[in-house]
Amino acid sequence: MRAAGRLPFAADGELPTAEVAVHAARDGDLVAADDRLAVEEPLEIRLAAAQGPRTLTITMRTPGHDFELVAGFLLAEGVIDSRERLLDIAYCVADEEEPEQRFNIVTATLDGPPGRASIERLVMTSSACGICGSASIEAAVACGHPPLGSGPRYTLAELAAFPDRLRAGQRTFSQTGGVHGIALLDGAGEVLCLREDVGRHNAVDKVVGWALLDARLPLSECALMVSGRVSFEIVQKAMRAGIAFVAAVSAATSLAVQLAEESGMTLVGFLRGGSCTVYTGRGRLVP
Amino acid sequence: MRAAGRLPFAADGELPTAEVAVHAARDGDLVAADDRLAVEEPLEIRLAAAQGPRTLTITMRTPGHDFELVAGFLLAEGVIDSRERLLDIAYCVADEEEPEQRFNIVTATLDGPPGRASIERLVMTSSACGICGSASIEAAVACGHPPLGSGPRYTLAELAAFPDRLRAGQRTFSQTGGVHGIALLDGAGEVLCLREDVGRHNAVDKVVGWALLDARLPLSECALMVSGRVSFEIVQKAMRAGIAFVAAVSAATSLAVQLAEESGMTLVGFLRGGSCTVYTGRGRLVP
Repeated sequence: MRAAGRLPFAADGELPTAEVAVHAARDGDLVAADDRLAVEEPLEIRLAAAQGPRTLTITMRTPGHDFELVAGFLLAEGVIDSRERLLDIAYCVADEEEPEQRFNIVTATLDGPPGRASIERLVMTSSACGICGSASIEAAVACGHPPLGSGPRYTLAELAAFPDRLRAGQRTFSQTGGVHGIALLDGAGEVLCLREDVGRHNAVDKVVGWALLDARLPLSECALMVSGRVSFEIVQKAMRAGIAFVAAVSAATSLAVQLAEESGMTLVGFLRGGSCTVYTGRGRLVP
Repeated sequence: MRAAGRLPFAADGELPTAEVAVHAARDGDLVAADDRLAVEEPLEIRLAAAQGPRTLTITMRTPGHDFELVAGFLLAEGVIDSRERLLDIAYCVADEEEPEQRFNIVTATLDGPPGRASIERLVMTSSACGICGSASIEAAVACGHPPLGSGPRYTLAELAAFPDRLRAGQRTFSQTGGVHGIALLDGAGEVLCLREDVGRHNAVDKVVGWALLDARLPLSECALMVSGRVSFEIVQKAMRAGIAFVAAVSAATSLAVQLAEESGMTLVGFLRGGSCTVYTGRGRLVP
């Protein structure tokens, strides 16, 4: 296997892919062919601390836009609330022998201590019996988020154009068929930022992290377009970024709909071929 | 929102769904409609210990087959290597006020201490710089797995029937469009077990956990059919269960293909409409 275009900082839309020799079924026979795969590599996210760096999480992701991924993750988890809290984000390249390991560890340095609730969640010290959908929603709301406010408004025709706008920017998906895509659209439905990743959640973190690092938060007048399904976690990440409008090609889960309802978010699913299902917040769809 | 069929132990194929009132776009208008959602709820997995239960992880899952999910997860993470290590799996129903929280915590009691490597991974104490795809593969292999051996063999025609066999059993997907499905097939291509979940990884854990609790491991003569894409983690879970043949409707990632190659597994992707891509182990496809 040969990695193509492996870069520490991917240029927009240029994620690494891997060429492999495969066999393809054709007319009942297996014939040799070439294929291109989406790259999956672990990323360890660390927080700098006086007593040495502390690992927050390890996520399997497609390399590229790693600093955005880390910034978006830290915001989503409540570790930071704003760009000002982030003093530095850097790869761990010191004392490293293997070149391929150099760009799989990112350390963030904060101004002040990390948000408490999130860290407790990350290190998994939930204590008493008491975990359920409602408790998850309470925890998500307690983590805090910008007021979603009136948000953007779209006509059904504008909304119907979202999937094609997302699809047009999914360059790595076109090559591999193996990554999710997330687009951030402005109030006119134009794409501001589009990111791809083997993990849906990572792609959301990259988009939100891009906005955070570019000092664009809260994203009060923006919509998020998701290439797949919408889970609780996707809604939570959008909420933390102040996004009031989330649309997806596929279904939403029960908990995603509940959290969208309680936070005043518009949530749309099965947006394809001109039709859709509006789960919550239909006031943002205008004639 | 009203939860339908919420059971602590779901009967085969009967997962909870939630009815919601939505609006559907129809001919340029929004009309009121009913919809059915896949249920997503947190599950906390605990290990019983002398000093009190310890939380291993919290996963968002579709309730039902929870003990299978826990058993499969423990095997996949290397916490246990066999059914004999599991003394008990139970819901945490004591001291519980909210009925809806009763079935979201499962405690496993082991015979002896948990496997060490896995616990270290779970509590995220990776120490030195040194994380990359190759290291992940080394760690997965070091975690141990049954020899994959010769495994099952299928003709292209038998393989081409897998997606329809999976699809026929995806009852919750038929209702909601919001869950992944995983089928375990025997050497003749017959479905032995089929599980659905909002999380792909959870559905694999449920299938493997079913086999573990039913004393069917290792699954040397079985194939796993996946409704979506194949990541590193899916291949790792299959490997731990001794499954030598994994097929999927969509793409595999670079790291999934590498691990399949190194462990001697057959990995097939884009299995749809009679065609497929054979990434590794084509020797198990026979004329």
